[in-house]
Amino acid sequence: MDEFALIDIIVEAMGDRAQGEWVHLGPGDDAAVITTTPGFDQVASIDVLVPNVHFPAQAPAFLIGYRALMVSLSDLAAMGAAPRYCIVALTLTENDVGDGCWLAELSRGMAQAARDSGTYICGGNMTRGPLNIAVSAHGEIAHSREIRRSGGKPGDKIYVSGPLGGAGACLRQDMLLPVEVDAMSELQKAYYKPQVRFDWHQGLSSVSCAIDISDGLLQDLGHLINASACGARLVEENIPLVAGALLEDALSASDDYQLLFASAQPQPEAFHIGELCEGKGIWLNGESIAMKGYKHFNA
Amino acid sequence: MDEFALIDIIVEAMGDRAQGEWVHLGPGDDAAVITTTPGFDQVASIDVLVPNVHFPAQAPAFLIGYRALMVSLSDLAAMGAAPRYCIVALTLTENDVGDGCWLAELSRGMAQAARDSGTYICGGNMTRGPLNIAVSAHGEIAHSREIRRSGGKPGDKIYVSGPLGGAGACLRQDMLLPVEVDAMSELQKAYYKPQVRFDWHQGLSSVSCAIDISDGLLQDLGHLINASACGARLVEENIPLVAGALLEDALSASDDYQLLFASAQPQPEAFHIGELCEGKGIWLNGESIAMKGYKHFNA
Repeated sequence: MDEFALIDIIVEAMGDRAQGEWVHLGPGDDAAVITTTPGFDQVASIDVLVPNVHFPAQAPAFLIGYRALMVSLSDLAAMGAAPRYCIVALTLTENDVGDGCWLAELSRGMAQAARDSGTYICGGNMTRGPLNIAVSAHGEIAHSREIRRSGGKPGDKIYVSGPLGGAGACLRQDMLLPVEVDAMSELQKAYYKPQVRFDWHQGLSSVSCAIDISDGLLQDLGHLINASACGARLVEENIPLVAGALLEDALSASDDYQLLFASAQPQPEAFHIGELCEGKGIWLNGESIAMKGYKHFNA
Repeated sequence: MDEFALIDIIVEAMGDRAQGEWVHLGPGDDAAVITTTPGFDQVASIDVLVPNVHFPAQAPAFLIGYRALMVSLSDLAAMGAAPRYCIVALTLTENDVGDGCWLAELSRGMAQAARDSGTYICGGNMTRGPLNIAVSAHGEIAHSREIRRSGGKPGDKIYVSGPLGGAGACLRQDMLLPVEVDAMSELQKAYYKPQVRFDWHQGLSSVSCAIDISDGLLQDLGHLINASACGARLVEENIPLVAGALLEDALSASDDYQLLFASAQPQPEAFHIGELCEGKGIWLNGESIAMKGYKHFNA
């Protein structure tokens, strides 16, 4: 199938998500043009998903598209930014392209995630090669108000925005497949349709540091305390778990895309799981614990 | 090698290009933060390069990196935008990673292209899989001043910003390899180190439509006239060629990243190669010619 016919399929599947509001010029030219809010900075992140690392190759294309867009947007939530738009680069095999049906479903999944997050997908690129989905995600935040990883201080309380371990439990129990778009278990939903916590982007203005949990609580907390040059003490029984998840799923395997943050002020809507402290390392119920989680390229 | 050690290698190789001026927050957090110019819109494009389609796998990593960044920035020049920053997603095999030397050279090549274009590389992502380089390129233009493909009118003169066919001639003569970073022929330079015409971003304000030539003059002119709903007449002897290039290299194989544009006003610094006309199609010295060029996914 011709490249331009495929682009038509994608833009059609995107529907109302290809253009609108702050998208001054959408797909079809050399680049997209996006208006900005005066006094706001741009926040930018890029993520890649490849089959059998970030999603099962046999999963429904709709869910692959949905998940790809959402996990990429999550980095914006972690900065306290309001999400605005994505541009997407698809590398596809001839087999992925086929008659265009798979691509249309992938695009519909992305469009639904864009609807659910209030964003647009205003441009992209397509090339031939082993399947690879790169999503460049962009948002805005009032000038100098971004929440960095590095602002935490000993004594700040540590919070998570919601229960953890659902996606990890789904993986651990080998429950990713079979899956049906309209009949997913709660654990499958946690994996395929993470709900990025953009509802927190106002609440985060009173926190000292933040990150999204994409590689397990311990590893992402490790990034937070390394950047903030302090340690962390966690209380095991305060770590909220999704029904069906074990503590281990939350600590080392979670990619639920909840937010992890610290604050000197009470955060009644979040789960208080510990506090930042002097020293270097993480203690769980007083015992030192390794910062373990998912890493690409482990030796 | 550990993911975080690899990121350190990249950031070190980026040197002065990872942070500065409009980059408020560079690599190391969940997302980069970039300040904007009041009254300006954001211009965004994404490109992907895969081995043996967009570069020879055996080419020096420095040149792969240089070319990847430059060709991605070219879409911004085509809109008349000033380039500002890129974020890069690298998908790498274990073999690409190796001891980190290849990755460091790739990064140094990207950093040099960033220096040559006045941009920064302020964020990225790394994952494991078949080699794939996605570059999300971002620039700015005064609100509503972007140059679209669609503004051309019959009677506008057609111009190119410089001689064509160098990269095409290099490909046709199978001269991409062997290549040495410090001893390239002129045709190799045209392919590996395209010089994106950001020097034109002021001049373009007086043109009616523009595109960059990435898939050959005929195909890219085809996009321009389709968007502008008109035809084009070219004068063969006025098409400027790089020394060593044939007309065919310019028409169907050029990825020299010169700009192609139309204007009702004289453009003394550009090459006048024809004019837009009524009708649909391209005529070369009065003869109808197919809009042939490079397409991915041809059936």
